[in-house]
Amino acid sequence: MSEGKPIECTAAVAYAPNKPLTIEKIIVEAPKTDEIRVKILKSALCHTDAFTLSGEDNEWPASDFKPVILGHEAAGIIESVGPEVTDLAVGDHVILLYTAECGECKFCLDDRTNLCIKVRSTQGKGVMPDGTTRFKTLKGEPIYHFMGCSTFSDYTVVSKHSAVKIDKDFDLEKAALLGCGVATGFGAAGYKGIGAAKKQNQITEGSSVAVFGLGAVGCSVLEGARAAGAKKIIAVDTNDKKEEWARSFGATDFVNPTKLPEGEDIVSKLVSMSDDGFGIDFTYDCTGNVNVMNNALMASARGTGISTVIGVAPAGAQISVRPFYLIVGRTWTGIAFGNIKGKSEMNKLIEASNQGVLSLEKYITHKREFKEINTAFEDLHSGDCLRTVFDY
Amino acid sequence: MSEGKPIECTAAVAYAPNKPLTIEKIIVEAPKTDEIRVKILKSALCHTDAFTLSGEDNEWPASDFKPVILGHEAAGIIESVGPEVTDLAVGDHVILLYTAECGECKFCLDDRTNLCIKVRSTQGKGVMPDGTTRFKTLKGEPIYHFMGCSTFSDYTVVSKHSAVKIDKDFDLEKAALLGCGVATGFGAAGYKGIGAAKKQNQITEGSSVAVFGLGAVGCSVLEGARAAGAKKIIAVDTNDKKEEWARSFGATDFVNPTKLPEGEDIVSKLVSMSDDGFGIDFTYDCTGNVNVMNNALMASARGTGISTVIGVAPAGAQISVRPFYLIVGRTWTGIAFGNIKGKSEMNKLIEASNQGVLSLEKYITHKREFKEINTAFEDLHSGDCLRTVFDY
Repeated sequence: MSEGKPIECTAAVAYAPNKPLTIEKIIVEAPKTDEIRVKILKSALCHTDAFTLSGEDNEWPASDFKPVILGHEAAGIIESVGPEVTDLAVGDHVILLYTAECGECKFCLDDRTNLCIKVRSTQGKGVMPDGTTRFKTLKGEPIYHFMGCSTFSDYTVVSKHSAVKIDKDFDLEKAALLGCGVATGFGAAGYKGIGAAKKQNQITEGSSVAVFGLGAVGCSVLEGARAAGAKKIIAVDTNDKKEEWARSFGATDFVNPTKLPEGEDIVSKLVSMSDDGFGIDFTYDCTGNVNVMNNALMASARGTGISTVIGVAPAGAQISVRPFYLIVGRTWTGIAFGNIKGKSEMNKLIEASNQGVLSLEKYITHKREFKEINTAFEDLHSGDCLRTVFDY
Repeated sequence: MSEGKPIECTAAVAYAPNKPLTIEKIIVEAPKTDEIRVKILKSALCHTDAFTLSGEDNEWPASDFKPVILGHEAAGIIESVGPEVTDLAVGDHVILLYTAECGECKFCLDDRTNLCIKVRSTQGKGVMPDGTTRFKTLKGEPIYHFMGCSTFSDYTVVSKHSAVKIDKDFDLEKAALLGCGVATGFGAAGYKGIGAAKKQNQITEGSSVAVFGLGAVGCSVLEGARAAGAKKIIAVDTNDKKEEWARSFGATDFVNPTKLPEGEDIVSKLVSMSDDGFGIDFTYDCTGNVNVMNNALMASARGTGISTVIGVAPAGAQISVRPFYLIVGRTWTGIAFGNIKGKSEMNKLIEASNQGVLSLEKYITHKREFKEINTAFEDLHSGDCLRTVFDY
């Protein structure tokens, strides 16, 4: 039994920005107070991991880059729990949650948002709520946590608020995907009252939708739009190779903004594609590019259009439009983790998967052994990868 | 009987940007088809009139400034109607509507918006729907219409969609104010399901509100916030003299952003004034200044805050913020005419006035004879004027 004791296991440690992760043995301390230690079985690589590794992340800047274990999209089994944990138990299958849900804070008690603040401030600093880390090198040097998850390790320690118990029958490979990207996109569509629906932003039956950027997040918005009964679902990407899979996820149309006729821009193109010529009912940025965000707003419908920012922009970048676009009734908003409350709504995502409305298996375009993780960063930028899932 | 014949009467004509209006006799043609001719009895001066007179208005630029009769906030009595008008009659008391309501277009049929398109395209060009004007000089030169209203004239001709019949017992001086500014602000608060409430943006009981800019629009947002039961209502203006009247309209606090201690900006000040330190539930820009719009968004609450743009910005000016402000759950939107559907919701504003919830009389800080209209432009910029109402 390893309970209560440190575990020596393999992890992929980021020691410096833009360098390969170092696969090495580390020590994972036992969980304290209300923490749990999880054996990771499946984990996927997300753009946010790559973004932080790049040194561009304000919270983990290149100028002050401390050793860290990345990874936040994963599922596993609880190996041990801290003394104050009563609602999770050894052997439970869990999905880790970078957006925690404590159920008690102002945000958890508000139906409209999922931005639990229970562990937020320490999570951003790469430490557990007591201010220390549970990871160290074999030489005893601290290694920091990431997004409250740090899943690129055989074992990790997280707050009990940062994991949701799931049914043991549910495939852990699929479960891993629900830890970030796919939940983010599918939640943004607000299908069946989940996620964005809590903000009154759910895609409505018969509506028009445009999704910019066709990674896992964008494709899951497409799938959510199809599930919600949207009539016209326009996928927008600069890579023509994305068209086929966009259509398989529900897109009815595909537009490559770099291949429009001279004199036509993506905004006028999309507006012209709306039934009445007033713009698209729901638009989504899944690129993190602020110019795309501006276009997504401008292409949304006069009077009633809602444009949602999902992609994370580089430090310092700003969105910018004439306020007239808002005055005439457009709404610009954004959401994190699809506005999904990780504990109380995860079962609805799993149900959507079980019913075939959310085809999690299709997002797994690559599979690798965990030790091949550095190659997975290349997969992510290859243009034909939605998710690489690691087997531990 | 003047019905069916041209009327010679007095009007104030704008012949050139930034010049005084010319008070002169003009000819007002009889109403055609579905038009009505209205004898204006009370009219007020709004910033939008001054804005267009300045030549800064994209739709009426200094470089192509044609003779126009300004004015759009007014009430009067129908003098005659075109042959196809059946729902309005000679003698009806009406408020003119720069935001028409035809009841049939896509926008009129959509509960969420008030942006009727029936007369919009011709309205922006200063002509009636048939492409011609009903005003001319005594020499026969055309004079153009403004915002579908042109109330700075003893008589005007408007589309039947651009006027709402009101009870003859209702004071026309108060009624005039419901034609723009006060309806805009009060509607933005969404009291009792009107206006912004149709967008799910109504101010909720017990919430916090911040209003930037304390003209008639800003003050009527304050009054709407009080009516809606907001707990903390913060008025923001650079003119300390506004504090007293802001409080009389419902403000619980007043902040002058130019007088904050060194190191404190208006965003951090407002956020610090929120109960929980996460920001203000509902913020409103009533200034037209894009920097203020940015601040209003940033001061709104993480997770759930809604910031509404009401003020009209100068040509070319852009709002600009880091998209992070949206990603963490804020919503940026805007409305015109308080999202009020002018025909079907006007009775609710009148009811609010009759019940003393909306104190229309308090917005009338100045009264003048119509012929003194040029002095009223000075009133508007004096800092102690909400509205000058003209008697014809």
